[in-house]
Amino acid sequence: MTNEEPAPFVAGWTLEDEAGTVSVAASTRALITALRRADAPTESLERAAALIDEATSLLEPHRVDGTPMQGRLGDRGPIGAQANEPRVFFPWSPIIGPLNPLSADVEFNVVDGRTTGRAFLGAQYNGPPGMVHGGIIALLFDELLGATNVCNGLGGFTGTLSIRYERPTWIERELQLESWVDRVEGRKVFTVGTISIDGEVTARAEGIFIMTQGWKPEEK
Amino acid sequence: MTNEEPAPFVAGWTLEDEAGTVSVAASTRALITALRRADAPTESLERAAALIDEATSLLEPHRVDGTPMQGRLGDRGPIGAQANEPRVFFPWSPIIGPLNPLSADVEFNVVDGRTTGRAFLGAQYNGPPGMVHGGIIALLFDELLGATNVCNGLGGFTGTLSIRYERPTWIERELQLESWVDRVEGRKVFTVGTISIDGEVTARAEGIFIMTQGWKPEEK
Repeated sequence: MTNEEPAPFVAGWTLEDEAGTVSVAASTRALITALRRADAPTESLERAAALIDEATSLLEPHRVDGTPMQGRLGDRGPIGAQANEPRVFFPWSPIIGPLNPLSADVEFNVVDGRTTGRAFLGAQYNGPPGMVHGGIIALLFDELLGATNVCNGLGGFTGTLSIRYERPTWIERELQLESWVDRVEGRKVFTVGTISIDGEVTARAEGIFIMTQGWKPEEK
Repeated sequence: MTNEEPAPFVAGWTLEDEAGTVSVAASTRALITALRRADAPTESLERAAALIDEATSLLEPHRVDGTPMQGRLGDRGPIGAQANEPRVFFPWSPIIGPLNPLSADVEFNVVDGRTTGRAFLGAQYNGPPGMVHGGIIALLFDELLGATNVCNGLGGFTGTLSIRYERPTWIERELQLESWVDRVEGRKVFTVGTISIDGEVTARAEGIFIMTQGWKPEEK
């Protein structure tokens, strides 16, 4: 070991084995990806189901009860924002969370309050032929706009979300993401965003979010 | 075997083993559910990851290429609607599809053109504390409204989707779903829907969908 070696990344999710849990989520994501395209014979399917059931039985005894949120497992552990790291403060997010196998290959980067990012969505997120499901696009936007708010100290609940689908958003293509806060009116935060392919917008969203904390009357 | 015994349900998805593939998807869904709440020790996590990876390696050789859609695996197999059975015509849907482990415990029933249904969403669909993620609500609505259109012979692409979040939609609670076509203007179909808990609306949606087939000029 040398001084140059970086310290292992520890997000502080208070899991017994953080990296090991991320790894099981990644394996599960790969399983979902393979299953979406598979037309397998009975023997392979029966063996696969038995292996998966055995994995599940190893995890079930370690269930943590309580009220979960995408930033926390149950009633214990830290909540919330480590600014500029959406995947760290939403680790169980169903679209960006490394601990949730529902999530996709998505990255958000927040610089000077503006979020850019990328996503690559496989066939499990498919709707119309070769295209990302409209509802998955909405899920991606809700998280993108919400993370932009959190990173600007304006986190809150989604009040309304409006999406306009302008062109096909293809699966298995690199998507470019952008989001920024348009304006704040009292406790309402108006946040917008786009998804593009090769620089051409395929979908755009506007959300009105209701701030739950950090609301300052002087912002009225 | 007697004459009273019902014939096994065959949806006609042209998979080598339809019921076996549904079963692997169900096992994977149970794994996701267990993982979302798990704080497991390293030994269990390592063993679980190895089992899952082995299951994946059994499926990967049986990959079908081509352009998938939520109604079809690749370029072969039937497309589309068997009216009143949304889970049959969207079997790979990421929210209602029995062949997609991303999907949840959701049922749609279409009677006289109006859709009712129910859903129960576990912690893997979680956003704010104890609540369903706003983007998952949007995904559920997009499919609910879209299925209503298909069952009315008005299937098409989502043009815009607007959601209003009025009260908390809780995870691990029974949700009631409703959707109906409000009106048709040329190729535009205006479809609305609600999610309720104990009869009280928690979220409502309006979508404008663009018909891609079955458009009749006399509907103008």
